Amino acid sequence: MRAFVFDGSSCRLRDDWPEPVPAPGEALLAVRLAGVCRTDLEIARGYMEFWGVLGHEFVGDVLVGPPEWVGRRVVGEINAPCGRCDLCARGLPAHCRNRTVLGIAGRHGVFAERVVLPVACLHAVPDVVSDRDAVFAEPLAAAFQILRQVRIGPDEDVVVLGDGRLGQLAARVVRTARPKGLLLVGKHEAKRALAAQQGIATASLLEYAPAAAADVVVDATGTPDGFALAMRAVRPRGTIVLKSTFAAEGGMNLAPLVVHEVTVVGSRCGPFDAALDALATGTVGVRDLVGAAYPLAQAADAMQAAADGRRVKVLIEMT
Amino acid sequence: MRAFVFDGSSCRLRDDWPEPVPAPGEALLAVRLAGVCRTDLEIARGYMEFWGVLGHEFVGDVLVGPPEWVGRRVVGEINAPCGRCDLCARGLPAHCRNRTVLGIAGRHGVFAERVVLPVACLHAVPDVVSDRDAVFAEPLAAAFQILRQVRIGPDEDVVVLGDGRLGQLAARVVRTARPKGLLLVGKHEAKRALAAQQGIATASLLEYAPAAAADVVVDATGTPDGFALAMRAVRPRGTIVLKSTFAAEGGMNLAPLVVHEVTVVGSRCGPFDAALDALATGTVGVRDLVGAAYPLAQAADAMQAAADGRRVKVLIEMT
Repeated sequence: MRAFVFDGSSCRLRDDWPEPVPAPGEALLAVRLAGVCRTDLEIARGYMEFWGVLGHEFVGDVLVGPPEWVGRRVVGEINAPCGRCDLCARGLPAHCRNRTVLGIAGRHGVFAERVVLPVACLHAVPDVVSDRDAVFAEPLAAAFQILRQVRIGPDEDVVVLGDGRLGQLAARVVRTARPKGLLLVGKHEAKRALAAQQGIATASLLEYAPAAAADVVVDATGTPDGFALAMRAVRPRGTIVLKSTFAAEGGMNLAPLVVHEVTVVGSRCGPFDAALDALATGTVGVRDLVGAAYPLAQAADAMQAAADGRRVKVLIEMT
Repeated sequence: MRAFVFDGSSCRLRDDWPEPVPAPGEALLAVRLAGVCRTDLEIARGYMEFWGVLGHEFVGDVLVGPPEWVGRRVVGEINAPCGRCDLCARGLPAHCRNRTVLGIAGRHGVFAERVVLPVACLHAVPDVVSDRDAVFAEPLAAAFQILRQVRIGPDEDVVVLGDGRLGQLAARVVRTARPKGLLLVGKHEAKRALAAQQGIATASLLEYAPAAAADVVVDATGTPDGFALAMRAVRPRGTIVLKSTFAAEGGMNLAPLVVHEVTVVGSRCGPFDAALDALATGTVGVRDLVGAAYPLAQAADAMQAAADGRRVKVLIEMT
């Protein structure tokens, strides 16, 4: 079959990639549509240890699996747990010590015609949700994780730092909790305009003056400067939700966390049910975030387009 | 009066320091005994912007103030709030935006014969608590803050990193919550022995193998390496209590916080009532932590002794 593969040094479309074979408990899926994530770009730059088929955001159809699943349109959680370790026993399968992660660790991804995934990872997509919406289920679930970890309600002032895909989704999800205040701070005028069109207040990074007053700051910048700004934006005893990873090569001073008794909450994958509900009911709109779509044959172009900071989301169409 | 003063470049005992005069709402205290803290050493190295009389840990007697306070033996909270800002209104006086901090910011400290402090900051010391115990009230309160911020109980495995003063007090306070497991990890054999004599399990830093399994890790190391170790010691979805400040001059990678969805809780000052209760009832013993005591005339020697990593706590006697 055709697949877009990172071999440890470079990415290439392969026509001769072996068909995946589902193990017991797994389903074989035909991928309809996939999304390119920053993690895919980082893997392709050789920043992670993964090699194989890239991609973990998708919507597809079940070809082989339990009868009740065959033919259904699905999205899938990316963490495939072992079911036996202490963290699985504790009810934290997304943190399983032996997990494989779709297109990220030990498991081939979705930039391919077909893929296998444990049935337990699958979520049926409601008919009212289009493919182009459903492909956002994974990152949108990650944004909903914020509401599972931090209390946000009518008393909270929230600042989201970063106008990329994560920041956009985070701001839209936070808004569903009806906070007292919500501000998206970002570098890119065109991306801020997308949030503004959704009725979200925005500020340019250059003009934003942090006042140590926000109850909750979501850092979706993926930069050490962004985290430093978050420490200046949050109020004493407030909370920073750290949504994106970064490595600070220069110095970093965490003293403000202690002095102001700030809580930092690391946040990764989230609830697919909440994401699919929001897409089905239209509580969170995502269609405006798609910047471009490429056929699988042009996956390399899709990666390049995603690396261009001007586009929020780039898709790859398998069929 | 006599006072040990940092003038912005060096520390010196002054015989001619002006007598402090209490403002409305303040009391004049005679200092009996003071403790040297790492913060004092940092100020004396010019790492902070403070100049004036050093010191913020003390026990003393009220000389001038409201009649009900005069003659009482007291300890005192170090943050003097404005009572008017948004954070005071929110019930967070220790985070007041206009606060002065005893011997640290905008207010002369306790390495002196006399000092002034708002009456609202004072706590009477129970008769059963000796001066040498009472002088630990401030740092012990800071350790009790951990129990106010993080749930610790019979299901939690706790690791305390750092065998200095903060680590010692943190481990002793955590033990009062009867966690399932408690381990103090430190560099210094003699200091680990102090904890071991209190019945606390210890491990050498060199031999400690972090296993991403602790529910709660208290980082009292004050070093970037300590924080990096905390990130390896805590389990996914666990909590790191950041009790001491540091500035990382090399790089720092916070990605593990996101990947493992760890919560970091910055923790500073705490409840004096809990600390005084623990000293009065003997729930937490501190007497073994005193390494040396010097008269005020030898405050410079006291500072030097405190800088020597072998001693846990150095005191200065005013009388």
